[in-house]
Amino acid sequence: MNKVILLNKRPVGKPVLGDFKFTSESIPSPSEGEILLKTLYVSVDPYLRGRMNDSKSYVPSFELNKPIQSGIIAEIMVSHHTGFKVGDFVSGNLEWKEYQILNGEGLNKLNASASELTPFLGILGMTGLTAYLGLTEIGCPKPGETLVVSGAAGAVGSVVGQIGKIMGCNVVGIAGSDEKTDMLLSKFKFDRAINYKTTPDMQEAIREACPNGVDIYFDNVGGEISDAVLANINKYARIAVCGAISLYNETEMPVGPRLQPIILTKSATMRGFIISDFSGKFPEAIQSLAHWLKEGKLTYAETIVEGFDRIPQAFIDLFEGKNEGKMIVKI
Amino acid sequence: MNKVILLNKRPVGKPVLGDFKFTSESIPSPSEGEILLKTLYVSVDPYLRGRMNDSKSYVPSFELNKPIQSGIIAEIMVSHHTGFKVGDFVSGNLEWKEYQILNGEGLNKLNASASELTPFLGILGMTGLTAYLGLTEIGCPKPGETLVVSGAAGAVGSVVGQIGKIMGCNVVGIAGSDEKTDMLLSKFKFDRAINYKTTPDMQEAIREACPNGVDIYFDNVGGEISDAVLANINKYARIAVCGAISLYNETEMPVGPRLQPIILTKSATMRGFIISDFSGKFPEAIQSLAHWLKEGKLTYAETIVEGFDRIPQAFIDLFEGKNEGKMIVKI
Repeated sequence: MNKVILLNKRPVGKPVLGDFKFTSESIPSPSEGEILLKTLYVSVDPYLRGRMNDSKSYVPSFELNKPIQSGIIAEIMVSHHTGFKVGDFVSGNLEWKEYQILNGEGLNKLNASASELTPFLGILGMTGLTAYLGLTEIGCPKPGETLVVSGAAGAVGSVVGQIGKIMGCNVVGIAGSDEKTDMLLSKFKFDRAINYKTTPDMQEAIREACPNGVDIYFDNVGGEISDAVLANINKYARIAVCGAISLYNETEMPVGPRLQPIILTKSATMRGFIISDFSGKFPEAIQSLAHWLKEGKLTYAETIVEGFDRIPQAFIDLFEGKNEGKMIVKI
Repeated sequence: MNKVILLNKRPVGKPVLGDFKFTSESIPSPSEGEILLKTLYVSVDPYLRGRMNDSKSYVPSFELNKPIQSGIIAEIMVSHHTGFKVGDFVSGNLEWKEYQILNGEGLNKLNASASELTPFLGILGMTGLTAYLGLTEIGCPKPGETLVVSGAAGAVGSVVGQIGKIMGCNVVGIAGSDEKTDMLLSKFKFDRAINYKTTPDMQEAIREACPNGVDIYFDNVGGEISDAVLANINKYARIAVCGAISLYNETEMPVGPRLQPIILTKSATMRGFIISDFSGKFPEAIQSLAHWLKEGKLTYAETIVEGFDRIPQAFIDLFEGKNEGKMIVKI
């Protein structure tokens, strides 16, 4: 049988296991022009939370009682398609199913061995593109500038900080445990790291960590952490709004200090983005990321959970910050 | 004698007359290389409120017991400077004094007759530059897009809307009285105008006035009006933060809905500016403004108050919205 995970209910606040439903169906048979894919790795990402709401977000909402989709790496088991052969590895935005049939559209063939696949869900996939293009297109980093990254130990944040270092910035990361801040300093070579859970005055801590002020803020979290960073921005600061994980599960309209006065007095630019905004630059970005990875200038962290049944819990755990780097479920 | 207005106290909340102090001194005599100026017109502007605080703002704070400064048009009474002759009209950032001595630095000579001077404090001065450059550099208007302007009946707002029309936008203005909204429609040819003081649901009113959503928001006010506009922005919206008059007099940190979720989901750009950020583009801007003014495509409103003693009250009245267009004190 073929296990499938559906959206059972739209989460209210933080997602819970009951928002997901497991079903099974028979393994389908591909027709002419189709391929049968076996899921190998499933990416779970904070942005999926937005798609579980009924409201308009940057991508369409998931439908109730339909399979959830995310970035997936799969192996081709049967091919009736001239462009794919059995044993090929592919990535794409696929359904949470053990097996599925496709006509090949939207799939990327991965030129890698079975042991080298997961980076295509992370540093050489959406994660890396998001980090690279958000930082370069919005942050416009210049050598000597100070870059602050929130959610710094997450999949995107850890790559942003490393690219900031490559580009000559002073990089300060904010994360939620001492293990994470240690990793930022030792593994990812951030200049400074702040554990927001044990820091009583974040505004002051950021001021101390950024004696020349904050030129670029790569924001993955929103909320009070961002308030504290924004209180320290320099004239002409650039704020890339990549995510707002602290706000995704709010059931009331979140309120906080109004930003217009600081945006105004600092001539600052705050810009939100989704990676598809920059799709024309994907080839250049992947080339840079692959080059740095090969040179050893970039590294990455993965939290890999095993088992199809654990996909929902892995997703839920993102909101508890249980991941270091990219959260992936191995099937 | 020579009347002078000093900053007596830093305003707490809304400025009051007691925050200003009138003194007098003898009329000074210029030395070699200096000129004696007689003040003719004084510009009062909302941004001066920020300079009255002790906190860092985009320009340095005024000092207590020192003369306040703003845009002024003056006539040269005595000249010991080869670059200026008696009877020349000049504009500059001068002190609130009836007479003052300068060495000529920072003054612009005005090539106009006595009856044509006030536009150089408005549409051909800071006001016009602010409107033109904020709209073109940040708003990036394209024909057919929808532009919303808050503080639309003010000096800057009324020019922004007209330039938006010249550039082919659908222009919606927000102002605080029926007289003002009538003026936006009849004199400035806005497409729609909303009186926020008599509109119970601004978010709904903006949705109705902007059936295709808001592509550009030129924000002079901040606060709840801006919340209502931002709830209606389109994907890739541009928000030029020019002023936040509704927040200038707040004594507590103003709070409101957090903006990051909407900035993120709409891939929107919010950018603050002060006109000096674009100083390299002043000549191009003035050329366009003067050209449109001559062609009759641009017009302007002025609220002219008479008497040196009334400068502080004219400034205070800005925060009550008592001006239509540029507020100027004629000496």
